[in-house]
Formats: sequence, C-alpha cells, structure tokens
Amino acid sequence: MILSHMEQYQSGLDGIFQALADPTRRAVIGRLGRGPASISELAEPFEMALPSFMKHIHVLERSGCIITRKDGRVRTCAIETAALAIVGDWLSAQRALWEGRTDRLEQFLAEATDPKETPR
Amino acid sequence: MILSHMEQYQSGLDGIFQALADPTRRAVIGRLGRGPASISELAEPFEMALPSFMKHIHVLERSGCIITRKDGRVRTCAIETAALAIVGDWLSAQRALWEGRTDRLEQFLAEATDPKETPR
Repeated sequence: MILSHMEQYQSGLDGIFQALADPTRRAVIGRLGRGPASISELAEPFEMALPSFMKHIHVLERSGCIITRKDGRVRTCAIETAALAIVGDWLSAQRALWEGRTDRLEQFLAEATDPKETPR
Repeated sequence: MILSHMEQYQSGLDGIFQALADPTRRAVIGRLGRGPASISELAEPFEMALPSFMKHIHVLERSGCIITRKDGRVRTCAIETAALAIVGDWLSAQRALWEGRTDRLEQFLAEATDPKETPR
C-alpha cells in the first residue's frame, strides 16, 4: 500500500498522540527530556515487570517519540524532539483557526455597525 | 475511588491524547475551530454511518475537547479550547526540560574551562 503524504502525516500524528496517551510513557518522555538513559534507569521508578515496560518503550519508539541504540549489552534511549514538534505545529494550526474566527467576528461586527458600508 | 489532583490530571491527559489519536476526531476539532456546528454538519464530509460518527463525538465529549448542547431536535457541538491548552502546557513543560538541559550543559562547560573555579 502506498500512502500519500497527507495519509503518512495523519498516521504519524495518530501514533504520536497514541504514544502520549499513557502516564508511564509521558513520564519516560519527561525523564528523557533531561538526557539519554538506559532501559534499566528508565524502568527503575516504575513498579512494572520489564516485559510490560518494554511494550511502552516499543510504542514510544514506533511512534518516533524516542530513538534507542544498543551499545554492547546496554540499550540507551533518547528523546526525538521532532515528534513533539509535530504535535506543537498541529496545536498552533488549531489555535490559528480560533484566532482567525475571532478576527472575522470582530470584522463582521465592525462592518455591521458601520452604516456607510454597502455590499459590493 | 477518590483520585488525587495528580491522578485526575494524568487521567485527563490520557483522555485528551486518546481523543486526538484519530484523524476523524482531529478533523472535527479542526472544523469546530471555525465555529460551532450541528452533528449533521460535522458528519457530512465523512463516509461513515451515523452511529460510528457518534462514537467519535462521544470520545471527544468525554475527553473534554468539545461540549455539546441540545437545542430542540438539533445537537450543536463547540470546541473546548481549555482541553487543548492543557496539551499545550504539557508540551511547554517538556520543552522547558530540554532547554534547561542545554542551559545546564553550557554552564557545566563554562565552569569546566574556568581554572579559577574551585569546588565548595
């Protein structure tokens, strides 16, 4: 199946939002915001079996929110800020819509109260 | 079950991110960014049975991303910008962590290259 750019973008956003919809995964992102860490460092604060914790790591990695690298026997994780920037851009686009609406509303009200204004 | 403020906040974020992890629901948010709309107006662009579309509306409503109101026989939906502001705040907090890390790194490097600096 070949996906269009828009389908790839939408599917990427689905995965990123899905990855962020869990408190453990958000906590991992928060920890990695302070710098790269090994899987065992990341797992330490959570009362969770390692296989369950690894599922969260895989969801984060598949979504592109983190990258992992194996150095010998230690897997190190780092945050991928580009994925969170995509969320930031999406939010900014939504905000631009509401603000555009407010501008148009103000313009509409200004024109409605100006009796010299006639339709063209 | 009584949830702490932090648990309520985390569970609220789970619901908001979950609500945003779907292209139909994001498109509804985008449409409502231009102003309130009825369910039938919102459903019109999607090739989807009404019960399936209503599931998306309920997910958005439960998460707090939209509010709905029944006027006679018409249900009108409006965006709740506060929910998206919570996502924006979370993203800003993450960004502050990375930026803090960069600042600390610069400070560390500056101290390391200053031979007059001694440990206290």
